[in-house]
Amino acid sequence: MKYRRSGRLVDMTEYLLRHPHQSVSLTFFSEKYNSAKSSISEDIGIIKEVFEQKGIGRLATSAGVSGGVIFVPTIDDKEALDTVHSICEQLKDPSRLLPGGYLYMMDIIGDPERMQLMGRIFASYFKDAQVDVVMTMATKGIPLAYAVASHLNVPVSIVRHEQRVTEGSIVSINYVSGSSQRIQTMSLSKRSLQSGARVLIIDDFMKAGGTIRGMMDLSEEFQATVVGAGVLMEAMHDKEKLVDNYVSLTKLFGVDAKDKKIHVEKGNMFP
Amino acid sequence: MKYRRSGRLVDMTEYLLRHPHQSVSLTFFSEKYNSAKSSISEDIGIIKEVFEQKGIGRLATSAGVSGGVIFVPTIDDKEALDTVHSICEQLKDPSRLLPGGYLYMMDIIGDPERMQLMGRIFASYFKDAQVDVVMTMATKGIPLAYAVASHLNVPVSIVRHEQRVTEGSIVSINYVSGSSQRIQTMSLSKRSLQSGARVLIIDDFMKAGGTIRGMMDLSEEFQATVVGAGVLMEAMHDKEKLVDNYVSLTKLFGVDAKDKKIHVEKGNMFP
Repeated sequence: MKYRRSGRLVDMTEYLLRHPHQSVSLTFFSEKYNSAKSSISEDIGIIKEVFEQKGIGRLATSAGVSGGVIFVPTIDDKEALDTVHSICEQLKDPSRLLPGGYLYMMDIIGDPERMQLMGRIFASYFKDAQVDVVMTMATKGIPLAYAVASHLNVPVSIVRHEQRVTEGSIVSINYVSGSSQRIQTMSLSKRSLQSGARVLIIDDFMKAGGTIRGMMDLSEEFQATVVGAGVLMEAMHDKEKLVDNYVSLTKLFGVDAKDKKIHVEKGNMFP
Repeated sequence: MKYRRSGRLVDMTEYLLRHPHQSVSLTFFSEKYNSAKSSISEDIGIIKEVFEQKGIGRLATSAGVSGGVIFVPTIDDKEALDTVHSICEQLKDPSRLLPGGYLYMMDIIGDPERMQLMGRIFASYFKDAQVDVVMTMATKGIPLAYAVASHLNVPVSIVRHEQRVTEGSIVSINYVSGSSQRIQTMSLSKRSLQSGARVLIIDDFMKAGGTIRGMMDLSEEFQATVVGAGVLMEAMHDKEKLVDNYVSLTKLFGVDAKDKKIHVEKGNMFP
Protein backbone atom coordinates (compact mmCIF):
# COMPACT_ATOMS: atom_id res chain seq x y z
CA MET A 1 0.00 0.00 0.00
CA LYS A 2 1.25 3.43 -0.94
CA TYR A 3 0.85 6.38 1.40
CA ARG A 4 0.19 9.95 0.46
CA ARG A 5 2.38 12.60 2.05
CA SER A 6 -0.31 13.77 4.46
CA GLY A 7 -0.79 10.26 5.88
CA ARG A 8 2.95 9.69 6.07
CA LEU A 9 3.47 12.93 8.00
CA VAL A 10 0.92 11.93 10.64
CA ASP A 11 2.30 8.43 11.04
CA MET A 12 5.98 9.47 10.99
CA THR A 13 5.31 12.17 13.58
CA GLU A 14 3.70 9.59 15.84
CA TYR A 15 6.54 7.12 15.27
CA LEU A 16 9.29 9.64 15.99
CA LEU A 17 7.58 10.94 19.15
CA ARG A 18 7.36 7.39 20.48
CA HIS A 19 11.00 6.62 19.68
CA PRO A 20 13.11 9.43 21.09
CA HIS A 21 16.91 9.22 21.00
CA GLN A 22 16.76 6.29 18.58
CA SER A 23 18.29 6.27 15.13
CA VAL A 24 15.67 5.46 12.48
CA SER A 25 16.95 4.77 8.97
CA LEU A 26 15.41 6.30 5.88
CA THR A 27 15.19 2.75 4.56
CA PHE A 28 12.88 1.83 7.45
CA PHE A 29 10.43 4.61 6.61
CA SER A 30 10.83 4.07 2.90
CA GLU A 31 9.80 0.41 3.25
CA LYS A 32 7.12 1.15 5.84
CA TYR A 33 5.38 3.54 3.45
CA ASN A 34 6.48 2.05 0.16
CA SER A 35 7.80 5.46 -0.82
CA ALA A 36 11.01 6.77 -2.37
CA LYS A 37 13.75 7.88 0.00
CA SER A 38 13.69 11.31 -1.60
CA SER A 39 10.04 11.72 -0.54
CA ILE A 40 10.86 10.49 2.97
CA SER A 41 13.69 13.02 3.15
CA GLU A 42 11.27 15.79 2.24
CA ASP A 43 8.78 14.57 4.88
CA ILE A 44 11.52 14.64 7.50
CA GLY A 45 12.39 18.17 6.44
CA ILE A 46 8.79 19.26 7.06
CA ILE A 47 8.61 17.53 10.46
CA LYS A 48 12.01 18.96 11.41
CA GLU A 49 10.88 22.48 10.65
CA VAL A 50 7.73 22.19 12.80
CA PHE A 51 9.50 20.37 15.65
CA GLU A 52 12.25 22.96 15.83
CA GLN A 53 9.98 25.95 15.45
CA LYS A 54 7.67 24.70 18.20
CA GLY A 55 10.47 23.54 20.49
CA ILE A 56 9.16 19.97 20.32
CA GLY A 57 12.59 18.63 19.56
CA ARG A 58 15.59 18.41 17.31
CA LEU A 59 15.65 16.07 14.33
CA ALA A 60 19.27 15.18 13.77
CA THR A 61 19.70 13.75 10.30
CA SER A 62 22.63 11.94 8.77
CA ALA A 63 23.05 11.66 5.01
CA GLY A 64 24.22 8.83 2.80
CA VAL A 65 23.14 5.25 2.18
CA SER A 66 22.85 4.49 5.89
CA GLY A 67 21.23 7.87 6.43
CA GLY A 68 18.71 8.26 9.16
CA VAL A 69 17.13 10.53 11.68
CA ILE A 70 17.15 10.83 15.47
CA PHE A 71 14.42 12.66 17.38
CA VAL A 72 15.83 14.48 20.41
CA PRO A 73 13.00 15.82 22.63
CA THR A 74 13.27 19.39 23.84
CA ILE A 75 10.82 21.87 25.24
CA ASP A 76 10.16 25.44 24.26
CA ASP A 77 11.79 27.84 26.80
CA LYS A 78 8.52 29.63 27.41
CA GLU A 79 6.60 26.37 27.91
CA ALA A 80 9.24 25.22 30.42
CA LEU A 81 9.08 28.45 32.38
CA ASP A 82 5.26 28.54 32.26
CA THR A 83 5.19 24.98 33.61
CA VAL A 84 7.48 25.87 36.50
CA HIS A 85 5.61 29.08 37.28
CA SER A 86 2.31 27.26 37.41
CA ILE A 87 3.82 24.65 39.76
CA CYS A 88 5.14 27.44 42.01
CA GLU A 89 1.69 29.03 42.14
CA GLN A 90 0.12 25.68 43.00
CA LEU A 91 2.73 25.09 45.71
CA LYS A 92 1.91 28.39 47.39
CA ASP A 93 -1.58 27.15 48.27
CA PRO A 94 -1.61 27.28 52.11
CA SER A 95 -3.89 24.22 52.34
CA ARG A 96 -0.86 22.05 51.52
CA LEU A 97 0.90 22.97 54.77
CA LEU A 98 1.22 19.90 57.00
CA PRO A 99 2.23 19.60 60.66
CA GLY A 100 5.99 19.91 61.08
CA GLY A 101 6.36 22.32 58.17
CA TYR A 102 5.96 19.60 55.54
CA LEU A 103 4.23 20.27 52.25
CA TYR A 104 1.62 18.01 50.65
CA MET A 105 2.84 17.43 47.09
CA MET A 106 1.14 14.21 46.02
CA ASP A 107 -1.36 16.07 43.85
CA ILE A 108 1.50 17.43 41.75
CA ILE A 109 3.47 14.17 41.79
CA GLY A 110 0.25 12.28 41.05
CA ASP A 111 -0.43 14.21 37.85
CA PRO A 112 1.04 12.31 34.87
CA GLU A 113 0.69 15.22 32.43
CA ARG A 114 2.66 17.49 34.75
CA MET A 115 5.24 14.75 35.23
CA GLN A 116 5.60 14.37 31.46
CA LEU A 117 6.21 18.11 31.10
CA MET A 118 8.81 18.11 33.88
CA GLY A 119 10.33 14.99 32.34
CA ARG A 120 10.70 16.85 29.05
CA ILE A 121 12.36 19.79 30.81
CA PHE A 122 15.02 17.54 32.34
CA ALA A 123 15.38 15.40 29.21
CA SER A 124 15.92 18.59 27.20
CA TYR A 125 18.47 19.90 29.69
CA PHE A 126 20.45 16.64 29.72
CA LYS A 127 19.92 15.78 26.04
CA ASP A 128 23.62 15.85 25.19
CA ALA A 129 24.86 14.22 28.41
CA GLN A 130 24.79 10.72 26.86
CA VAL A 131 22.78 9.35 29.77
CA ASP A 132 22.64 5.53 29.96
CA VAL A 133 20.34 5.19 32.96
CA VAL A 134 18.19 7.33 35.25
CA MET A 135 18.58 6.55 38.98
CA THR A 136 16.05 7.49 41.63
CA MET A 137 15.09 6.73 45.21
CA ALA A 138 11.82 4.96 46.00
CA THR A 139 9.05 6.09 46.29
CA LYS A 140 8.29 9.66 45.35
CA GLY A 141 11.11 10.13 42.85
CA ILE A 142 9.84 7.28 40.67
CA PRO A 143 7.19 9.12 38.60
CA LEU A 144 9.54 11.95 37.62
CA ALA A 145 12.40 9.52 36.94
CA TYR A 146 10.24 7.53 34.49
CA ALA A 147 9.08 10.69 32.76
CA VAL A 148 12.69 11.78 32.24
CA ALA A 149 13.83 8.30 31.22
CA SER A 150 11.04 7.84 28.70
CA HIS A 151 12.10 11.03 26.90
CA LEU A 152 15.76 9.97 26.98
CA ASN A 153 14.98 6.36 25.99
CA VAL A 154 16.97 4.85 28.86
CA PRO A 155 16.05 2.46 31.71
CA VAL A 156 15.40 3.41 35.34
CA SER A 157 17.28 2.05 38.37
CA ILE A 158 15.33 2.28 41.61
CA VAL A 159 17.33 2.60 44.82
CA ARG A 160 15.54 1.53 48.02
CA HIS A 161 15.83 1.89 51.76
CA GLU A 162 14.75 -1.66 52.43
CA GLN A 163 15.93 -4.88 50.80
CA ARG A 164 13.57 -7.01 48.76
CA VAL A 165 13.67 -10.71 48.00
CA THR A 166 12.67 -9.95 44.42
CA GLU A 167 15.81 -7.98 43.62
CA GLY A 168 18.46 -10.71 43.72
CA SER A 169 21.96 -9.75 44.86
CA ILE A 170 22.15 -6.19 46.01
CA VAL A 171 24.80 -3.62 46.85
CA SER A 172 24.11 -1.59 50.00
CA ILE A 173 25.80 1.46 51.42
CA ASN A 174 25.32 3.54 54.53
CA TYR A 175 24.85 7.25 54.12
CA VAL A 176 24.16 10.20 56.35
CA SER A 177 20.92 12.01 55.78
CA GLY A 178 22.22 15.58 55.59
CA SER A 179 19.31 17.25 57.35
CA SER A 180 18.65 14.77 60.16
CA GLN A 181 22.24 13.50 60.45
CA ARG A 182 20.85 9.98 60.82
CA ILE A 183 22.74 7.06 59.33
CA GLN A 184 20.60 5.19 56.83
CA THR A 185 21.05 2.39 54.32
CA MET A 186 20.31 2.39 50.61
CA SER A 187 20.42 -0.61 48.31
CA LEU A 188 20.42 -1.26 44.60
CA SER A 189 20.02 -4.56 42.80
CA LYS A 190 23.34 -5.61 41.29
CA ARG A 191 21.70 -6.35 37.95
CA SER A 192 20.11 -2.98 37.57
CA LEU A 193 23.22 -0.91 36.88
CA GLN A 194 26.06 -1.75 34.49
CA SER A 195 29.65 -0.96 35.26
CA GLY A 196 30.71 2.15 33.35
CA ALA A 197 27.16 3.40 32.87
CA ARG A 198 26.49 7.15 32.71
CA VAL A 199 23.94 7.88 35.44
CA LEU A 200 21.50 10.76 35.73
CA ILE A 201 20.06 11.07 39.26
CA ILE A 202 16.46 12.33 39.51
CA ASP A 203 14.55 12.91 42.75
CA ASP A 204 11.51 14.81 43.96
CA PHE A 205 13.07 16.71 46.85
CA MET A 206 16.51 17.72 48.11
CA LYS A 207 17.36 19.42 51.36
CA ALA A 208 20.98 19.02 52.40
CA GLY A 209 21.57 16.60 49.54
CA GLY A 210 22.39 13.54 51.65
CA THR A 211 20.25 11.17 49.62
CA ILE A 212 21.69 12.35 46.31
CA ARG A 213 25.21 12.23 47.78
CA GLY A 214 24.40 8.64 48.79
CA MET A 215 23.26 7.75 45.26
CA MET A 216 26.49 9.24 43.92
CA ASP A 217 28.53 7.07 46.30
CA LEU A 218 26.40 4.05 45.40
CA SER A 219 27.04 4.68 41.70
CA GLU A 220 30.76 4.67 42.44
CA GLU A 221 30.40 1.20 43.97
CA PHE A 222 29.14 0.11 40.54
CA GLN A 223 31.99 1.93 38.73
CA ALA A 224 29.34 4.09 37.13
CA THR A 225 29.71 7.79 36.31
CA VAL A 226 27.17 10.34 37.53
CA VAL A 227 26.66 12.91 34.77
CA GLY A 228 24.24 15.10 36.72
CA ALA A 229 21.33 15.33 39.11
CA GLY A 230 17.92 16.95 38.87
CA VAL A 231 15.27 17.59 41.51
CA LEU A 232 11.72 18.86 41.39
CA MET A 233 12.26 20.95 44.54
CA GLU A 234 15.28 22.00 46.58
CA ALA A 235 14.86 23.42 50.04
CA MET A 236 17.11 26.40 50.68
CA HIS A 237 18.85 26.28 54.04
CA ASP A 238 21.84 27.74 55.81
CA LYS A 239 24.30 24.88 55.67
CA GLU A 240 26.30 24.02 52.64
CA LYS A 241 24.77 21.35 50.41
CA LEU A 242 26.50 18.00 50.10
CA VAL A 243 26.37 18.13 46.28
CA ASP A 244 27.26 20.87 43.80
CA ASN A 245 26.38 19.48 40.45
CA TYR A 246 22.56 19.53 40.37
CA VAL A 247 19.69 21.43 38.81
CA SER A 248 16.34 22.19 40.44
CA LEU A 249 12.99 23.15 38.95
CA THR A 250 11.81 24.98 42.09
CA LYS A 251 13.35 26.42 45.25
CA LEU A 252 11.60 26.34 48.61
CA PHE A 253 12.81 29.32 50.63
CA GLY A 254 10.66 28.68 53.64
CA VAL A 255 7.35 27.87 55.18
CA ASP A 256 5.65 30.14 57.67
CA ALA A 257 3.20 27.90 59.50
CA LYS A 258 1.73 30.82 61.50
CA ASP A 259 0.98 33.14 58.58
CA LYS A 260 0.34 30.17 56.27
CA LYS A 261 2.83 31.46 53.72
CA ILE A 262 4.90 29.20 51.49
CA HIS A 263 7.78 30.92 49.79
CA VAL A 264 8.66 29.06 46.61
CA GLU A 265 10.34 30.26 43.43
CA LYS A 266 11.73 28.86 40.21
CA GLY A 267 14.82 26.69 40.61
CA ASN A 268 18.46 27.10 39.65
CA MET A 269 17.83 25.71 36.14
CA PHE A 270 16.29 29.06 35.25
CA PRO A 271 18.70 31.96 35.64
CA MET B 1 1.28 33.32 10.86
CA LYS B 2 -0.50 30.98 8.51
CA TYR B 3 0.33 27.30 8.44
CA ARG B 4 0.32 25.02 5.47
CA ARG B 5 -1.54 21.74 5.77
CA SER B 6 1.64 19.68 6.09
CA GLY B 7 2.88 21.73 9.04
CA ARG B 8 -0.53 21.69 10.69
CA LEU B 9 -0.76 17.90 10.41
CA VAL B 10 2.57 17.43 12.17
CA ASP B 11 1.75 19.88 14.95
CA MET B 12 -1.84 18.68 15.46
CA THR B 13 -0.68 15.06 15.61
CA GLU B 14 1.80 16.00 18.32
CA TYR B 15 -0.79 18.03 20.21
CA LEU B 16 -3.43 15.29 20.15
CA LEU B 17 -0.96 12.58 21.23
CA ARG B 18 0.03 14.70 24.24
CA HIS B 19 -3.58 15.42 25.22
CA PRO B 20 -5.43 12.10 25.29
CA HIS B 21 -9.04 11.93 26.54
CA GLN B 22 -9.36 15.73 26.37
CA SER B 23 -11.86 17.59 24.28
CA VAL B 24 -10.12 20.03 21.93
CA SER B 25 -12.34 22.50 20.09
CA LEU B 26 -12.01 23.24 16.38
CA THR B 27 -11.84 26.89 17.39
CA PHE B 28 -8.68 26.20 19.38
CA PHE B 29 -6.91 24.68 16.37
CA SER B 30 -8.39 27.25 14.02
CA GLU B 31 -6.93 30.11 16.10
CA LYS B 32 -3.67 28.28 16.78
CA TYR B 33 -3.00 27.93 13.05
CA ASN B 34 -4.91 30.94 11.79
CA SER B 35 -6.82 28.60 9.47
CA ALA B 36 -10.48 28.10 8.55
CA LYS B 37 -12.43 25.54 10.55
CA SER B 38 -13.23 23.72 7.32
CA SER B 39 -9.50 23.17 6.75
CA ILE B 40 -9.04 22.02 10.35
CA SER B 41 -11.92 19.57 9.90
CA GLU B 42 -10.21 18.12 6.85
CA ASP B 43 -6.91 17.84 8.77
CA ILE B 44 -8.68 15.97 11.55
CA GLY B 45 -10.20 13.64 8.97
CA ILE B 46 -6.72 12.79 7.68
CA ILE B 47 -5.31 12.21 11.19
CA LYS B 48 -8.38 10.16 12.14
CA GLU B 49 -7.90 7.87 9.15
CA VAL B 50 -4.23 7.19 9.96
CA PHE B 51 -4.82 6.81 13.71
CA GLU B 52 -7.64 4.32 13.20
CA GLN B 53 -5.92 2.38 10.45
CA LYS B 54 -2.75 2.03 12.53
CA GLY B 55 -4.56 1.34 15.79
CA ILE B 56 -3.00 4.46 17.36
CA GLY B 57 -6.36 5.62 18.63
CA ARG B 58 -9.86 6.79 17.99
CA LEU B 59 -10.61 10.41 17.13
CA ALA B 60 -14.12 11.08 18.37
CA THR B 61 -15.47 14.20 16.72
CA SER B 62 -18.51 16.25 17.54
CA ALA B 63 -20.06 18.60 15.01
CA GLY B 64 -21.57 22.06 15.34
CA VAL B 65 -20.34 25.44 16.59
CA SER B 66 -18.85 23.95 19.75
CA GLY B 67 -17.52 21.04 17.72
CA GLY B 68 -14.33 19.39 18.77
CA VAL B 69 -12.28 16.26 18.83
CA ILE B 70 -11.14 13.81 21.51
CA PHE B 71 -8.16 11.51 21.03
CA VAL B 72 -8.73 8.13 22.69
CA PRO B 73 -5.50 6.06 22.70
CA THR B 74 -5.73 2.45 21.61
CA ILE B 75 -3.25 -0.12 20.46
CA ASP B 76 -3.29 -2.35 17.44
CA ASP B 77 -4.28 -5.94 18.45
CA LYS B 78 -1.19 -7.38 16.85
CA GLU B 79 1.11 -4.85 18.53
CA ALA B 80 -0.49 -5.65 21.91
CA LEU B 81 -0.06 -9.39 21.44
CA ASP B 82 3.50 -8.98 20.11
CA THR B 83 4.36 -6.90 23.18
CA VAL B 84 3.00 -9.53 25.54
CA HIS B 85 4.69 -12.39 23.67
CA SER B 86 8.02 -10.64 23.81
CA ILE B 87 7.60 -10.06 27.55
CA CYS B 88 6.77 -13.77 28.02
CA GLU B 89 9.91 -14.74 26.11
CA GLN B 90 11.99 -12.39 28.23
CA LEU B 91 10.44 -13.76 31.41
CA LYS B 92 11.40 -17.32 30.49
CA ASP B 93 15.09 -16.47 30.79
CA PRO B 94 16.31 -18.79 33.60
CA SER B 95 18.84 -16.22 34.83
CA ARG B 96 15.97 -14.32 36.42
CA LEU B 97 15.21 -17.13 38.87
CA LEU B 98 15.93 -15.99 42.44
CA PRO B 99 16.14 -18.00 45.69
CA GLY B 100 12.68 -18.90 46.98
CA GLY B 101 11.17 -19.17 43.50
CA TYR B 102 11.03 -15.40 42.99
CA LEU B 103 11.57 -13.84 39.59
CA TYR B 104 13.75 -10.82 38.90
CA MET B 105 11.54 -8.41 36.94
CA MET B 106 13.14 -5.01 37.50
CA ASP B 107 14.65 -5.00 33.99
CA ILE B 108 11.14 -5.15 32.52
CA ILE B 109 9.62 -2.76 35.06
CA GLY B 110 12.65 -0.47 34.61
CA ASP B 111 12.08 -0.09 30.86
CA PRO B 112 9.97 3.03 30.20
CA GLU B 113 9.23 2.14 26.55
CA ARG B 114 7.86 -1.27 27.61
CA MET B 115 5.85 0.41 30.37
CA GLN B 116 4.37 2.86 27.86
CA LEU B 117 3.31 -0.01 25.61
CA MET B 118 1.71 -1.89 28.50
CA GLY B 119 0.12 1.35 29.64
CA ARG B 120 -1.44 1.73 26.20
CA ILE B 121 -2.76 -1.84 26.33
CA PHE B 122 -4.57 -1.20 29.63
CA ALA B 123 -5.68 2.31 28.62
CA SER B 124 -7.13 0.89 25.44
CA TYR B 125 -8.89 -1.91 27.33
CA PHE B 126 -10.42 0.50 29.87
CA LYS B 127 -10.96 3.39 27.44
CA ASP B 128 -14.75 3.46 27.91
CA ALA B 129 -14.74 2.77 31.66
CA GLN B 130 -14.79 6.50 32.55
CA VAL B 131 -11.84 6.10 34.88
CA ASP B 132 -11.25 9.09 37.21
CA VAL B 133 -8.12 7.86 38.94
CA VAL B 134 -5.59 5.02 38.74
CA MET B 135 -4.71 3.44 42.10
CA THR B 136 -1.60 1.39 42.75
CA MET B 137 0.50 0.01 45.59
CA ALA B 138 4.01 1.35 46.18
CA THR B 139 6.61 0.56 44.89
CA LYS B 140 6.66 -1.71 41.88
CA GLY B 141 3.18 -0.92 40.60
CA ILE B 142 3.99 2.78 40.23
CA PRO B 143 5.65 2.78 36.77
CA LEU B 144 2.82 0.82 35.12
CA ALA B 145 0.17 2.88 36.93
CA TYR B 146 1.65 6.13 35.57
CA ALA B 147 1.88 4.71 32.06
CA VAL B 148 -1.81 3.76 32.16
CA ALA B 149 -2.85 7.05 33.79
CA SER B 150 -0.94 9.18 31.30
CA HIS B 151 -2.83 7.54 28.41
CA LEU B 152 -6.17 7.96 30.22
CA ASN B 153 -5.35 11.52 31.34
CA VAL B 154 -6.18 10.87 35.01
CA PRO B 155 -4.17 11.23 38.25
CA VAL B 156 -2.52 8.42 40.21
CA SER B 157 -3.22 7.55 43.87
CA ILE B 158 -0.38 5.70 45.55
CA VAL B 159 -1.30 3.36 48.42
CA ARG B 160 1.51 2.55 50.86
CA HIS B 161 2.37 0.06 53.56
CA GLU B 162 3.97 2.64 55.79
CA GLN B 163 2.68 6.06 56.81
CA ARG B 164 4.48 9.20 55.76
CA VAL B 165 4.54 12.62 57.38
CA THR B 166 4.28 14.20 53.95
CA GLU B 167 0.84 12.78 53.20
CA GLY B 168 -1.35 14.63 55.70
CA SER B 169 -4.39 12.82 57.08
CA ILE B 170 -4.57 9.25 55.91
CA VAL B 171 -7.06 6.42 55.88
CA SER B 172 -5.64 3.02 56.85
CA ILE B 173 -7.10 -0.46 56.66
CA ASN B 174 -5.90 -3.88 57.63
CA TYR B 175 -5.97 -6.60 55.04
CA VAL B 176 -4.93 -10.20 54.77
CA SER B 177 -2.23 -10.98 52.26
CA GLY B 178 -3.89 -13.89 50.47
CA SER B 179 -0.78 -15.96 49.87
CA SER B 180 1.01 -15.53 53.22
CA GLN B 181 -2.16 -15.06 55.32
CA ARG B 182 -0.36 -12.29 57.20
CA ILE B 183 -2.31 -9.26 58.38
CA GLN B 184 -0.88 -6.07 56.92
CA THR B 185 -1.80 -2.39 56.83
CA MET B 186 -2.27 -0.17 53.81
CA SER B 187 -2.79 3.60 53.85
CA LEU B 188 -3.88 6.28 51.46
CA SER B 189 -3.74 10.04 51.90
CA LYS B 190 -7.24 11.42 52.42
CA ARG B 191 -6.67 14.12 49.82
CA SER B 192 -5.61 11.79 47.09
CA LEU B 193 -9.00 10.19 46.35
CA GLN B 194 -12.33 11.97 45.92
CA SER B 195 -15.56 10.49 47.16
CA GLY B 196 -17.48 8.99 44.23
CA ALA B 197 -14.39 8.63 42.04
CA ARG B 198 -14.19 5.77 39.54
CA VAL B 199 -11.02 3.86 40.35
CA LEU B 200 -8.90 1.62 38.13
CA ILE B 201 -6.48 -0.53 40.15
CA ILE B 202 -3.14 -1.31 38.48
CA ASP B 203 -0.38 -3.46 39.98
CA ASP B 204 2.66 -5.37 38.83
CA PHE B 205 1.90 -8.76 40.39
CA MET B 206 -1.05 -10.66 41.81
CA LYS B 207 -1.00 -14.02 43.53
CA ALA B 208 -4.08 -14.69 45.67
CA GLY B 209 -5.28 -11.14 45.12
CA GLY B 210 -5.09 -9.98 48.75
CA THR B 211 -3.44 -6.66 47.94
CA ILE B 212 -5.96 -5.85 45.22
CA ARG B 213 -8.81 -6.96 47.48
CA GLY B 214 -7.36 -4.56 50.08
CA MET B 215 -7.28 -1.68 47.59
CA MET B 216 -10.91 -2.42 46.72
CA ASP B 217 -11.86 -2.28 50.41
CA LEU B 218 -9.83 0.89 50.85
CA SER B 219 -11.66 2.48 47.89
CA GLU B 220 -14.93 1.66 49.61
CA GLU B 221 -13.77 3.62 52.66
CA PHE B 222 -13.54 6.63 50.34
CA GLN B 223 -16.97 5.92 48.81
CA ALA B 224 -15.18 5.36 45.52
CA THR B 225 -16.17 2.82 42.86
CA VAL B 226 -13.66 0.32 41.50
CA VAL B 227 -14.30 -0.08 37.77
CA GLY B 228 -11.64 -2.73 37.19
CA ALA B 229 -8.18 -4.01 37.95
CA GLY B 230 -5.20 -4.82 35.77
CA VAL B 231 -1.94 -6.60 36.55
CA LEU B 232 1.24 -7.18 34.61
CA MET B 233 1.50 -10.75 35.93
CA GLU B 234 -0.80 -13.10 37.78
CA ALA B 235 0.53 -16.22 39.44
CA MET B 236 -1.70 -19.23 38.86
CA HIS B 237 -2.28 -21.25 41.98
CA ASP B 238 -4.69 -23.78 43.40
CA LYS B 239 -6.78 -21.67 45.73
CA GLU B 240 -9.53 -19.41 44.59
CA LYS B 241 -8.50 -15.81 43.99
CA LEU B 242 -9.89 -13.11 46.26
CA VAL B 243 -10.98 -10.98 43.28
CA ASP B 244 -12.86 -11.84 40.09
CA ASN B 245 -12.94 -8.67 38.13
CA TYR B 246 -9.38 -8.28 36.85
CA VAL B 247 -7.34 -8.57 33.67
CA SER B 248 -3.75 -9.79 33.41
CA LEU B 249 -1.15 -9.36 30.67
CA THR B 250 0.75 -12.53 31.59
CA LYS B 251 0.15 -15.69 33.61
CA LEU B 252 2.87 -17.38 35.63
CA PHE B 253 2.04 -21.09 35.77
CA GLY B 254 5.06 -22.10 37.75
CA VAL B 255 8.76 -21.99 38.34
CA ASP B 256 10.90 -25.09 38.37
CA ALA B 257 14.01 -24.10 40.29
CA LYS B 258 15.72 -27.44 39.63
CA ASP B 259 15.27 -27.54 35.87
CA LYS B 260 15.47 -23.74 35.65
CA LYS B 261 12.20 -23.57 33.76
CA ILE B 262 9.78 -20.67 34.03
CA HIS B 263 6.34 -21.37 32.65
CA VAL B 264 4.72 -18.12 31.62
CA GLU B 265 2.01 -17.40 29.06
CA LYS B 266 -0.17 -14.54 27.89
CA GLY B 267 -2.73 -13.36 30.42
CA ASN B 268 -6.51 -13.51 30.59
CA MET B 269 -6.87 -10.28 28.59
CA PHE B 270 -6.03 -12.29 25.48
CA PRO B 271 -8.49 -15.10 24.83
